[in-house]
Amino acid sequence: MSRDAVDASPSTSDAFFAADDAYVPRTALEKASRGQNFLLERWNAREKRNTDDDASSALAKTIVVVTSGGTTAPLERTQVRCVDNFSSGTRGARLVEELVARADVETVMLRREGSCAPHERIVIESATMSGESARVGRPSHALDALELVEGGDELRAKAAHRDATVRALRGVEAERDRLTVLTFKTLYEYLALLKATCETVEAEACRRGGRAVVVLAAAVSDFYVPWRDLPEHKIQSSAHTEVGLELTLKPVPKMLGEIKRVWCPSAFVASFKLETDVSILADKARQSLSRYGLDAVVANELTTRYDHVTIYTADGASKTLRRSDDPAVAGVEHGASSLDGQIVHELLRHVQSA
Amino acid sequence: MSRDAVDASPSTSDAFFAADDAYVPRTALEKASRGQNFLLERWNAREKRNTDDDASSALAKTIVVVTSGGTTAPLERTQVRCVDNFSSGTRGARLVEELVARADVETVMLRREGSCAPHERIVIESATMSGESARVGRPSHALDALELVEGGDELRAKAAHRDATVRALRGVEAERDRLTVLTFKTLYEYLALLKATCETVEAEACRRGGRAVVVLAAAVSDFYVPWRDLPEHKIQSSAHTEVGLELTLKPVPKMLGEIKRVWCPSAFVASFKLETDVSILADKARQSLSRYGLDAVVANELTTRYDHVTIYTADGASKTLRRSDDPAVAGVEHGASSLDGQIVHELLRHVQSA
Repeated sequence: MSRDAVDASPSTSDAFFAADDAYVPRTALEKASRGQNFLLERWNAREKRNTDDDASSALAKTIVVVTSGGTTAPLERTQVRCVDNFSSGTRGARLVEELVARADVETVMLRREGSCAPHERIVIESATMSGESARVGRPSHALDALELVEGGDELRAKAAHRDATVRALRGVEAERDRLTVLTFKTLYEYLALLKATCETVEAEACRRGGRAVVVLAAAVSDFYVPWRDLPEHKIQSSAHTEVGLELTLKPVPKMLGEIKRVWCPSAFVASFKLETDVSILADKARQSLSRYGLDAVVANELTTRYDHVTIYTADGASKTLRRSDDPAVAGVEHGASSLDGQIVHELLRHVQSA
Repeated sequence: MSRDAVDASPSTSDAFFAADDAYVPRTALEKASRGQNFLLERWNAREKRNTDDDASSALAKTIVVVTSGGTTAPLERTQVRCVDNFSSGTRGARLVEELVARADVETVMLRREGSCAPHERIVIESATMSGESARVGRPSHALDALELVEGGDELRAKAAHRDATVRALRGVEAERDRLTVLTFKTLYEYLALLKATCETVEAEACRRGGRAVVVLAAAVSDFYVPWRDLPEHKIQSSAHTEVGLELTLKPVPKMLGEIKRVWCPSAFVASFKLETDVSILADKARQSLSRYGLDAVVANELTTRYDHVTIYTADGASKTLRRSDDPAVAGVEHGASSLDGQIVHELLRHVQSA
């Protein structure tokens, strides 16, 4: 990583995404392109089905993109090692569940490999609450909600997890028609996929006479190694037994402003702002709004982020949303009673009433 | 990370694990200690149950420890960022499934958080083969193997996944009596937990008149930042916009030799050796055997690792094991027909025939 290596902050998004392997590897661009084709094929197939059948289930006019999870910054091209940042993807998964439950939107999820899965999450959380897997010492998985019917090879949901399991399975059913998931792992893949998806969704929403909405819930790396600066093979531990391993990571160019400016100008773009210091949260949220030309910023504080959030909008307004205190809905929260249902409703209200 | 920071390679395991926060944080030692207590409580409860009932289900004399997954090297004490290494934990999960299926052993799994879960894996792989979730674009999860019975709130396994789901649920049942899982994420947690577990299992196997077996399938980081050298808080991206982020990682002290030398001298210890170059594999495996005083090394090549492996033992012998070619067992491989079943059988043969 010498001084004559590539500049870490290319002045334009075009330079960053150029197919010359300087900042982003060609493989990430190709993966984004495959994702784009997959999305278009699904839309085509759905349109054909609608034409073949009656037209009662017309294509949704609103297309929502939700990003979820963290990104990795590889330290080797073969990607044995990487710098990772913590994000479970729970917020993104919850938002997607609420979106998939609505017939008036179509959802595209950009999901970090291995992060929290919509709908499966509901069953895992239900199983975790009962604490059964904790007796073995391991985290819960979906099988913990099930049991074999005695003396046979049939299975059923355990009584305590029946509601959660049925709700989750209905969600998995609905995913088939209303959700497309595109996965990423590295920062390169994420940025290339976000650009390709934004451009595709903008055009399609426009074609349908509707609108695109981009909800940025992913936690994106602040630092990375430009592709051209990466060693090809696994860094050998034997070559670094004395001084250890020296690494230099460059700042990731800010792409948030590119979304409204270039990739999907007519979209409604909302990002999440997470802070641990609540006193600076409002200012930081308003700064993001103007700096990146966003339509909304959902501000949340780390410890209370599943209890309440405040949405700041470009018109200068703000609105605080709280999860229901009703214990009857606390177990299997969903729709208007859940905080994420309210966030979805509030963001879509700005778009669909326009 | 200045030159006068702590030496990265303390000369003794005692210095490395000293409770002075130099190399390993106190929290990792405390977590290991809690894991140790959890293990002892489970054994006590089982022993009491055996005394209360008849004594038909006596405690297994052989206790096997399996390590699984990769480890992270944190870059901040608050652990927003870390260096990670790739390992899905599939090998460890498969070995644990085979061990849990046997009544003659008790298993302790040291599992990286979020890595492959024994038994759940079987259902996910079955669902992946049917390719249904691929239509949405996401990876499979266990719910993909299930469906709602039409017109009702009952569920069942889809026909294609019935065998896999039933086998997995029987495995989850058996986990309750035969498996204890202790989880780790960081390298610090892994090393502290491995030491505590080895010591505890050695003593318990001895008390039962049996033997401890340690199977090291985890991929451990080669580099880390000693705890004393870590910044307390999240590294601010704003402070590194010019030159970027400079990091120095130190080599991780080799602990493999400590297992037989200090932590559990009477155990049978087997480690895995993975290479991409098959021509150096045998030599590397034999080197590991003598260098760390191991009893067995399971050598495998990256692309064929689920098809065949060679086990090198301290007596100079070697034995190649292959998965069954019988297509009838290829779908839901298990026991003697599976490669992992054979590995388990072969390792235990050395111990239980002695």
